[in-house]
Amino acid sequence: MSTTTRRTTKADLPLRVIFLGGVGEIGKNMTALEYGDEIIIIDCGVSFPSGDMPGVDLVIPDITYLTANRDKVKGIVLTHGHEDHIGAIPFVLKELNVPVYGTRLTLALLEPKIREHKLLEVVRFNVVRAGATVALGANFKVEFVNVSHSVAGSCALSITTPLGIVFHTGDFKVDFTPIAGNVIDLQRIAEIGQQGVMLLMSESTNVEKSGSSLSEAVVGQSLNQIFSENTDRRIFIATFASNVHRLQQIIDLAQKYNRKVAFSGRSMINVTDVAFKIGELRFPQDAVVDLDRVKDIEDKHLVIITTGSQGEPMSALTRMSKDEFNHIQMDYNDTVVISASPIPGNERHVYDVINNLYRHGVRVIYEKLADVHVSGHACQEELKLMIALLQPSFFIPVHGEFRHLKKHAELAMRMGIPAQRILLCDIGNCAEISKTKGLRLASEVTAGNVLVDGLGVGDVGSSVLKDRKHLSEDGLFLVVIGLNTERGEVTALEMLSRGFVYTKESDGTETMGAAKTMVYKLLQDFDLKGELNDWGVLKNAVRRELKSFLHKKTRRNPMILTVVIES
Amino acid sequence: MSTTTRRTTKADLPLRVIFLGGVGEIGKNMTALEYGDEIIIIDCGVSFPSGDMPGVDLVIPDITYLTANRDKVKGIVLTHGHEDHIGAIPFVLKELNVPVYGTRLTLALLEPKIREHKLLEVVRFNVVRAGATVALGANFKVEFVNVSHSVAGSCALSITTPLGIVFHTGDFKVDFTPIAGNVIDLQRIAEIGQQGVMLLMSESTNVEKSGSSLSEAVVGQSLNQIFSENTDRRIFIATFASNVHRLQQIIDLAQKYNRKVAFSGRSMINVTDVAFKIGELRFPQDAVVDLDRVKDIEDKHLVIITTGSQGEPMSALTRMSKDEFNHIQMDYNDTVVISASPIPGNERHVYDVINNLYRHGVRVIYEKLADVHVSGHACQEELKLMIALLQPSFFIPVHGEFRHLKKHAELAMRMGIPAQRILLCDIGNCAEISKTKGLRLASEVTAGNVLVDGLGVGDVGSSVLKDRKHLSEDGLFLVVIGLNTERGEVTALEMLSRGFVYTKESDGTETMGAAKTMVYKLLQDFDLKGELNDWGVLKNAVRRELKSFLHKKTRRNPMILTVVIES
Repeated sequence: MSTTTRRTTKADLPLRVIFLGGVGEIGKNMTALEYGDEIIIIDCGVSFPSGDMPGVDLVIPDITYLTANRDKVKGIVLTHGHEDHIGAIPFVLKELNVPVYGTRLTLALLEPKIREHKLLEVVRFNVVRAGATVALGANFKVEFVNVSHSVAGSCALSITTPLGIVFHTGDFKVDFTPIAGNVIDLQRIAEIGQQGVMLLMSESTNVEKSGSSLSEAVVGQSLNQIFSENTDRRIFIATFASNVHRLQQIIDLAQKYNRKVAFSGRSMINVTDVAFKIGELRFPQDAVVDLDRVKDIEDKHLVIITTGSQGEPMSALTRMSKDEFNHIQMDYNDTVVISASPIPGNERHVYDVINNLYRHGVRVIYEKLADVHVSGHACQEELKLMIALLQPSFFIPVHGEFRHLKKHAELAMRMGIPAQRILLCDIGNCAEISKTKGLRLASEVTAGNVLVDGLGVGDVGSSVLKDRKHLSEDGLFLVVIGLNTERGEVTALEMLSRGFVYTKESDGTETMGAAKTMVYKLLQDFDLKGELNDWGVLKNAVRRELKSFLHKKTRRNPMILTVVIES
Repeated sequence: MSTTTRRTTKADLPLRVIFLGGVGEIGKNMTALEYGDEIIIIDCGVSFPSGDMPGVDLVIPDITYLTANRDKVKGIVLTHGHEDHIGAIPFVLKELNVPVYGTRLTLALLEPKIREHKLLEVVRFNVVRAGATVALGANFKVEFVNVSHSVAGSCALSITTPLGIVFHTGDFKVDFTPIAGNVIDLQRIAEIGQQGVMLLMSESTNVEKSGSSLSEAVVGQSLNQIFSENTDRRIFIATFASNVHRLQQIIDLAQKYNRKVAFSGRSMINVTDVAFKIGELRFPQDAVVDLDRVKDIEDKHLVIITTGSQGEPMSALTRMSKDEFNHIQMDYNDTVVISASPIPGNERHVYDVINNLYRHGVRVIYEKLADVHVSGHACQEELKLMIALLQPSFFIPVHGEFRHLKKHAELAMRMGIPAQRILLCDIGNCAEISKTKGLRLASEVTAGNVLVDGLGVGDVGSSVLKDRKHLSEDGLFLVVIGLNTERGEVTALEMLSRGFVYTKESDGTETMGAAKTMVYKLLQDFDLKGELNDWGVLKNAVRRELKSFLHKKTRRNPMILTVVIES
């Protein structure tokens, strides 16, 4: 009897899908699958801080739920090597040392971070090639399925669980003419679909774009055209370091047009080094020269591949555009290709760089003007193909803002998946699938953003950000009051401001003087003797009066700090 | 002889075109034409602060050059009533009380600002209808030429000067099927072209877009479709208040579909009030209801026209999306149409609003999904038409970032205007045209941005912005040192921080304690007696040591303020 009971219970055990991190986007940085006493983690990435997080370097997922269940966690599987999918690994491994599974390039891109955090000795890396399956715990078998994306070695994950197959697309597109490696494994995806997929989680980045994405090969054609039209000019190409297929195309074109290649920018140099070592990037040694040697090479024999395609303030291209880069001076004989599109929020930075390049007389070619970039994400027809091949019982759109998930759900419904078999989730949500109850939203878990600022992980919270916002918009007004508590006298009164401007009175006197007079007068109402006084009431009164005084004079509300010093 | 000499001099007198204001865009907010001892001003607008100007409310042009030449200034001519062309008028009129010329709607939109600044009694407004010509000074005759744009009453300016005609397009598009008023006056533009145009200044906003802009009528068709598909739902439409033609189309549709209209948001209520009064907006009185009455009206009988199409944090729509708006609660029976496209930099705000609306179950329709907005600016074919009709001798592209001006110059060159007859300008540049020397860049003038923050105009400068940036990214660390200079003793040492977090030492003690110990120790090296000491050396030493101490502990660089109080 007890055996039967246990079996019944097990048959009802739900599979839980838990969405742990991502600024703005849901189901991107980190997702956990839980069944009984086992958990596996899909991806482990960083987000970049939004505009309301000044000074913050990185944002990592909150893993409170995982550390509270640390014995359950069997490992981390990685879909591909982009920062928003691998960047948080060093932080997470410090809390939770579990094995990490990924393709060769994914782990190679991760290795320098692991070294930087001095974790090389504790980390357990497992290289998985596309097509292979690994077992995590007793309940999860994860098959890595080759897909196209803007970084080589990208995979979807077909995860066999006791309740059925969960298929997670990772980031993908369908590229029938890839630069290297195999075409996305549509045969295998169709086969998995025929076996029966319980749950599909598919990415939603480009769900608002009709049609299909363009092949990476299109960029090669555009660049070839640019090389052939700029034969006497020096050529710069800014792109993402991790897009090794694009780098390969540029290097091949450089050889065709008899140009040497120089890499510029720290991440470009690091990634090309890693990719060359493992054979993902191929070129003869003499195809490449060091950046400090480019002065000796004629313009027409040179291509410089550089970081800065997002207009990042400290990047090589941004500094070149402002004449602040050591090795390079831009001029009228230069052609710069921005082979990327601005990530939302970066538009201003990118266009500032372009404007400055034009001011130097540089010829600039960017996405709006030519096909010098293609997206790495599936458009509507590709998303439909994925659903058609997999025919899942349940569907959770992932990797997008809420509006993208909503649109992806509508697309799935148009393909015949009933609304009640589709779930829209948010960060912190926990979706549950069970044989008896189907797909539904279960209770929430602790999740969200942990801010990394300097050496601090998680110590910058909302009150610190609120203070920073206040200081940035209104500045600071500081009052220091020196008191002789024996004599009950004010011995000093200092005021200063930063990021805040006091205006002059109409009679020419300055507000600072008037503010001092106001505070002196106010202090007369207080008994300044009492030794045990904590001065809280006095400080509050000073702050309140000053606030109203300064607002009246300036219509501004600086942060007012009051310090009382007793002598 | 002397007469002849004077005549020769006058024949050589150049016409100067001076670019005075605009954040990011050149030749937008304010341009001056100068000939001999006369100056006229074209437009007088504000810019909105960029991301590196926290706390700044508005940006107005620097008019140092105009106030230094105040006797020369004959008046301000306005092309249309958008903020970036009229918003700085009150600030400028306070310095420079000259007559203002514009069409009826342009001046009607300006009037509330004039009232707010209490300038109604000094202002000299001159209503000019399209087709009319006004003389400013002895040297300038300005003809207002009707053009299409996203605000009614928009005009190009054909300015007859002693050297020939300067044609300034203002903001324009070609709309062959306008909602009200006349089609852009292409006949007159062609006629002016036949008379001979010396200089064309043409706007460049959409120069990167091929083809032609869509007619405003297209939006009406899309909205009609939306009304017919949402018959039982409450409809919200967010758009710019100044686009009265769009408002008219929405009001007409509301009547067709038997819905009452309510206006929401301060600027929407103000502008519709103004436009109704002067007859630019027409509707029967009972077509409109007050917002506080909408609770009594069935969803299917209501359209709410609201501000907030740019996701502005305090706007009506943004507050509705967050359940923070008094009169309205959003739910699953609501359809929201965002009839605008995000201005670069506002994307994140707009998408946050859309995401939140979806979370409330609202149906959201925005530009990416349907033709619910058209641009008010000419695309490439329209820009070419303007050049073809006017056939100018010289060309200065205006109203765009430098990259737009560059592209517009290339477009003009493809149409046969020689490169040496085209000039790319920047803010502060002064272009000069003379009979003998043609078009060339002359010396620069003081120009640029004056920041308005609260009641302060121009008092927030780069050092204040630098402080705000520093405070926002790294926060503040404050040290107050109390000294008894008679005994040479430290009597108090207070430290506090805002927007900055100190971490704990590995042994559990806090950095703040360690920082105090460090400072106490440092102070022992100083002679704390000398009365005449200004403590500069001591303060610098404390700051320097603390900076290195805090950076070592946290990898952060807060702003460190040191105050010494003597007793």
